[in-house]
Amino acid sequence: MALSLTQLQNVVKHIVDSEPFLHTPEELYAPIEYSLRLGGKRLRPTMLLAACQLFGGDIEAAHPAALAVEVFHNYTLVHDDLMDGSSLRRGKPTVFHRWNENTALLSGDAMLIMAFKYLSAPAVCRLLRMFSQMAIDVVRGQQYDMNFERRLDVSVDEYLDMIYLKTAVLFCGALRMGATLADAPAADIELLMQYGRNLGLAFQLQDDVLDTYGDENTFGKKTGQDISDNKKTMLLITALADANSDQRAALHKLLASPKSDAKVEAVRAIYDCIGVRSKVEKLIGDYLRQADAALAAIHATYEAKAPLRDLLQKLVGRHS
Amino acid sequence: MALSLTQLQNVVKHIVDSEPFLHTPEELYAPIEYSLRLGGKRLRPTMLLAACQLFGGDIEAAHPAALAVEVFHNYTLVHDDLMDGSSLRRGKPTVFHRWNENTALLSGDAMLIMAFKYLSAPAVCRLLRMFSQMAIDVVRGQQYDMNFERRLDVSVDEYLDMIYLKTAVLFCGALRMGATLADAPAADIELLMQYGRNLGLAFQLQDDVLDTYGDENTFGKKTGQDISDNKKTMLLITALADANSDQRAALHKLLASPKSDAKVEAVRAIYDCIGVRSKVEKLIGDYLRQADAALAAIHATYEAKAPLRDLLQKLVGRHS
Repeated sequence: MALSLTQLQNVVKHIVDSEPFLHTPEELYAPIEYSLRLGGKRLRPTMLLAACQLFGGDIEAAHPAALAVEVFHNYTLVHDDLMDGSSLRRGKPTVFHRWNENTALLSGDAMLIMAFKYLSAPAVCRLLRMFSQMAIDVVRGQQYDMNFERRLDVSVDEYLDMIYLKTAVLFCGALRMGATLADAPAADIELLMQYGRNLGLAFQLQDDVLDTYGDENTFGKKTGQDISDNKKTMLLITALADANSDQRAALHKLLASPKSDAKVEAVRAIYDCIGVRSKVEKLIGDYLRQADAALAAIHATYEAKAPLRDLLQKLVGRHS
Repeated sequence: MALSLTQLQNVVKHIVDSEPFLHTPEELYAPIEYSLRLGGKRLRPTMLLAACQLFGGDIEAAHPAALAVEVFHNYTLVHDDLMDGSSLRRGKPTVFHRWNENTALLSGDAMLIMAFKYLSAPAVCRLLRMFSQMAIDVVRGQQYDMNFERRLDVSVDEYLDMIYLKTAVLFCGALRMGATLADAPAADIELLMQYGRNLGLAFQLQDDVLDTYGDENTFGKKTGQDISDNKKTMLLITALADANSDQRAALHKLLASPKSDAKVEAVRAIYDCIGVRSKVEKLIGDYLRQADAALAAIHATYEAKAPLRDLLQKLVGRHS
């Protein structure tokens, strides 16, 4: 009997919750346990198991791979928060903020290594090559993101390439790993990765929208952070592209101004004038439709695809 | 025909020099190339190839594993320098100093992932488990080292456990990887790891001595740094253990005082009074003898062991 999305999520919760993360020295592992126990949506390991199940694979054998992607994802959060100086994540203090810089650095390193150690389990070690390529692509995406901070002329295509690396690659990678463990046909793996790519892009664009327009309580992070940090998000890039000359001049002036609540409000007001939010939400809708189409084309029954369809559905109109 | 130590070092030099490290984005890879091209002794990949050759293995098939240990070692240097705020390494600016904190963080991450990617080559991927365990032990060692910074009561045994993890584990690991690729008998691998453990401890203790007593030009780092940073080195731990009450009081006072050349001189004078240097050098001699004995016990001809014996010999009385 195939597991539903909720059941797969419970399997993932069980895998992560029953994994002992605390070893010696505690100073190294306490932040790791903290980070992994905070929860979050655990989308990536769920996708991996769903992909494995879709093609009739043994999801129990895939557990170490699911742990690998979740621990890897948490490594990226710990180091990204350190680089960005972010103090809040999932409504709780970040590792860097709760402990200190060196702890976030070294615990993140340990998590990255742990991810590879999970992959050394015999049932999953053939994923090493694709996993390491995916990992390096995520880091490349983070570097592009940092590069963009110093630029005002980031194009829509450059931005999409960056979030593809930074976010969608891990979605694709998790799906590909699960499907590979189930020995899925190459053509179907390709379609599944199209699903993952489009879903990943939609997810990241939604994150951009939520950072500016989300509800802080459900979002778990302070909103307006991207505007404060002059982050080149899809909202800002779209605004700069579609602004009239007065609006563009105002945006440039605001980008040069120091952090303040007034700055966030003023930028948001210009976004509203230009209609940036609905433009980005239209794009999100396009990606979600393409994800859905790719999923529909996969050679498997409609019922078997239910968890991945439900996952897509859940990400439509999410508020956190 | 077996290769000599010098020939093995040349093979390693060729492997590293002919590896293209520069990809896009350049901001991520330029520090990686810089770090790997700086050279250094490249002891660890040389040990790996020497161990492989000792047991009749195919050293060409071991090349990706040699790259993995060298790139991993350089990752530890980049992140350690960042954590320590060190500005000089191998006589050149550190990555953190030449670029910035976030660059050192992310490029180090990429190097760590690259090390695992090299291991995904079919001929060497069976080393993944031992490599990832070794990697996590090195990070644990670094955490203990950081923990010790806040303590004045670090014992000799605690210190030796720490440097075992931080330094000797990678020596052992490189040797074990090489021997495993050559399908060496378990008992001989065990002896080879004893050699590596003792050599690694001697090497790190020698590093402690050189940091305080070395020649800056050949050492490649500023000397006296450990004293300035109140690092719990074997010199300081031995001094605190063997000091009379006046000397101990003076040391505690100096540890509480700010960085200065006078502080370095004063601590060094107390070390000289207590005879700390010769005590630590005696210990180094003991470890080198044990390494030599373990090597001698391995079931292989005297000639076949020449590169590893020469390596040991080279580390005796090194000045950098």
